[in-house]
Amino acid sequence: MSAPSDRDVLSTRTIPRSYYEKLFKETDSLRKELETKNILDSCRGSILATIFMEPSTRTRLSFHYAMVKIGGEVIDFGPVEAASIAKGETFEDTIRMIDGYAPDVIVIRNKVPGSAKLAADICAAPVINGGDGSNEHPTQAMLDLYTMQKLRGTIDGAKVGLMGDLAHSRTTSSLSYALDKFDNVSIFYIAPSELQVRPEVVDSLSHVHVEKAETYVNVIRDLDFLYVTRLQRERFTEPREYERLKGSYQLDRSSLSKYSKLPFIMHPLPRVDELNPDLDALSIAKYFEQARNGMYVRAALLKRTISGQS
Amino acid sequence: MSAPSDRDVLSTRTIPRSYYEKLFKETDSLRKELETKNILDSCRGSILATIFMEPSTRTRLSFHYAMVKIGGEVIDFGPVEAASIAKGETFEDTIRMIDGYAPDVIVIRNKVPGSAKLAADICAAPVINGGDGSNEHPTQAMLDLYTMQKLRGTIDGAKVGLMGDLAHSRTTSSLSYALDKFDNVSIFYIAPSELQVRPEVVDSLSHVHVEKAETYVNVIRDLDFLYVTRLQRERFTEPREYERLKGSYQLDRSSLSKYSKLPFIMHPLPRVDELNPDLDALSIAKYFEQARNGMYVRAALLKRTISGQS
Amino acid sequence: MSAPSDRDVLSTRTIPRSYYEKLFKETDSLRKELETKNILDSCRGSILATIFMEPSTRTRLSFHYAMVKIGGEVIDFGPVEAASIAKGETFEDTIRMIDGYAPDVIVIRNKVPGSAKLAADICAAPVINGGDGSNEHPTQAMLDLYTMQKLRGTIDGAKVGLMGDLAHSRTTSSLSYALDKFDNVSIFYIAPSELQVRPEVVDSLSHVHVEKAETYVNVIRDLDFLYVTRLQRERFTEPREYERLKGSYQLDRSSLSKYSKLPFIMHPLPRVDELNPDLDALSIAKYFEQARNGMYVRAALLKRTISGQS
Repeated sequence: MSAPSDRDVLSTRTIPRSYYEKLFKETDSLRKELETKNILDSCRGSILATIFMEPSTRTRLSFHYAMVKIGGEVIDFGPVEAASIAKGETFEDTIRMIDGYAPDVIVIRNKVPGSAKLAADICAAPVINGGDGSNEHPTQAMLDLYTMQKLRGTIDGAKVGLMGDLAHSRTTSSLSYALDKFDNVSIFYIAPSELQVRPEVVDSLSHVHVEKAETYVNVIRDLDFLYVTRLQRERFTEPREYERLKGSYQLDRSSLSKYSKLPFIMHPLPRVDELNPDLDALSIAKYFEQARNGMYVRAALLKRTISGQS
Repeated sequence: MSAPSDRDVLSTRTIPRSYYEKLFKETDSLRKELETKNILDSCRGSILATIFMEPSTRTRLSFHYAMVKIGGEVIDFGPVEAASIAKGETFEDTIRMIDGYAPDVIVIRNKVPGSAKLAADICAAPVINGGDGSNEHPTQAMLDLYTMQKLRGTIDGAKVGLMGDLAHSRTTSSLSYALDKFDNVSIFYIAPSELQVRPEVVDSLSHVHVEKAETYVNVIRDLDFLYVTRLQRERFTEPREYERLKGSYQLDRSSLSKYSKLPFIMHPLPRVDELNPDLDALSIAKYFEQARNGMYVRAALLKRTISGQS
Repeated sequence: MSAPSDRDVLSTRTIPRSYYEKLFKETDSLRKELETKNILDSCRGSILATIFMEPSTRTRLSFHYAMVKIGGEVIDFGPVEAASIAKGETFEDTIRMIDGYAPDVIVIRNKVPGSAKLAADICAAPVINGGDGSNEHPTQAMLDLYTMQKLRGTIDGAKVGLMGDLAHSRTTSSLSYALDKFDNVSIFYIAPSELQVRPEVVDSLSHVHVEKAETYVNVIRDLDFLYVTRLQRERFTEPREYERLKGSYQLDRSSLSKYSKLPFIMHPLPRVDELNPDLDALSIAKYFEQARNGMYVRAALLKRTISGQS
């Protein structure tokens, strides 16, 4: 057993600005190397253990591709149904077992908030939080920031709209904590009142300027980025409320055509109804580029974590 | 986004005879190399993305073994249940994401006819159709042809019986289109009328000689190959019709003992009741050899596709 | 098709003492090499086929890590649900297919007793039994013996309590046969009468000294090792009997505190209620070390099996 260390990546609350600067430099450097070579030797001989106890495609696969591209090996836990968890084994015992096989780094997703921290408390290997319920998803925030920096040159001074089911979104929570480390950033939380950002998220922000809005209509002109997340019908206690509001959270070409200046559109994906595919060909639609960036940012993160840099 | 190119392998309708000649030469060459070396370096540093959205063992595993044997890496999508598709993500978004991670080649199976073509329309990486519903299964046809050529020396002039549920069989459709590229080939479609080959399949054949029969009894003497596929009870609208006919589609030693000359027996596998295991030890039973050939043919196909040969 | 050979690892009934001696020497040697190198070249170019038709975490993952650590490749069959077995393919056809792709070694788990032997009868590749129903789990016995030898210096003369649902435990059966190959070993079978060791297991022991007890209370003072397995409520025909007995099979600090001398506590894991986590920090708790040992013992077993040593 070991205490969680600087090598664990659990929350963006405690990651300083300087960390991102080094990470994104590494990302650009790996990306350049991968233009001329398919698979690098950076992490030859290292093993990544992926443990996804909740469904995942993007996070799981982008970590897998990332590790293979930097020359490492991936051993996946497999679907939970095929595992001893189905026999009643505790989370702690399962994690301790995998850590005992001595992987060089562990990525874990579990629906319980705090589970990644719990794993880090147990494991000798560094643990990366791949999403712990509605709590955090720090590596998503990393690729979000990287995408913003690429598109705008700097994150300082950015005006960011976060729209959708903010109450249950680990993505927008982690991104909020991360943006708070930069200067002169404004966050506009755009959601119906029952799905607005949780008070404890806003309370832990110290640096960023915060505004709230019920729809994007009045704030979109001011934004550099409109970051959209899913708004699920089943989250509404009043079905009628959903019917009244859904139009305000579904973007398409026609709804955006009335604005002369538009922000970049981002989304952690998967999307369902909130972004119409007729937007995909627009130059402001950056969500697929964002997903691609994820692989490179995670490759850099794995390389730094395995080599003990923090 | 890129147009489907010559590098995609979607349908045997458009694959010329010369392609098979080069492919089978490569197959024989790889096979020989693999006799003395366990894993080759032909595709060292390349990544195969396998995406099987329908159950598969043979196709999925033979592609996996094939890629490993030529030195490449395989990143599997995993079971659909563990993926964002379960969250409502579209097929197009899922495929676009994986293509964004820059694999060198993609193999995809999906139950919707035309889905492999749709993936090829989206992807920068070459796409190989691993079975698109009842439409096509071109790599199965390749290993079928390779097996026939090995057994008979040439495909020209072959007399091939295709027996079973031809109406719903992508295997026999793809094989028909492929056989049509050779000279003096005869195809005997052997099936009850309600499960006979679909008119559009026969209509698109221009070169091959076509006959139909309700059972193999009257035609087996003329055949070089009897290619059997599954005949599923649930396909029959009339259960009594199934009971009347099933004996005509289930082969065993006793039913074949009355013929002095027998064709080679082939089957894409898995089999259920249509081939009795008492046939397995006969020298005419070639279905396990056919499955083994699949790995070598797919290794050659992957090598050619990755290196941009068509 | 090939006869099962000395290279197959199916049962501890037929494995002589000398085999363990060589295996454990190899284990120690690999372990030492892995202290300074993350991944060895011992089995570079070899392929392990893992086929787990029943849920497994520890056995599946420890074989996977073991093979990667000695430089080999692993191709997993995947969950049964995603396979042709769901289409009605027989076990024999599935195994024959995989063997046809020429892996260097196969590890198989299936719920049917004797299934590993059946696979070995079919396969050209050596087959390792990863658990065949309630019959055997020989590689678990290997890591159990290895752990005992590490802790006590020698297995000769050991006093071993096996406690829990012995009637349905492949683990304690395989361990019994293995212990029977050493000198002056005593086995204490500790279980309620309806879950006691099966007569055919004891009948096949020729060398070991056997005793039976209903609870550990009267024998624990004599033991070097108390090997605990799960005791599942649903195994009892009388629920009241379970309630009466369960305390006798659940160990915690308080229940053990009354003994001045305690044996090492072992468990194949996963555990459910039978070992309280408050034991984990005790120096006699050896089950996590046992699980870790599993990876090294399996690495040595794979290396020896692939290289044809027996």
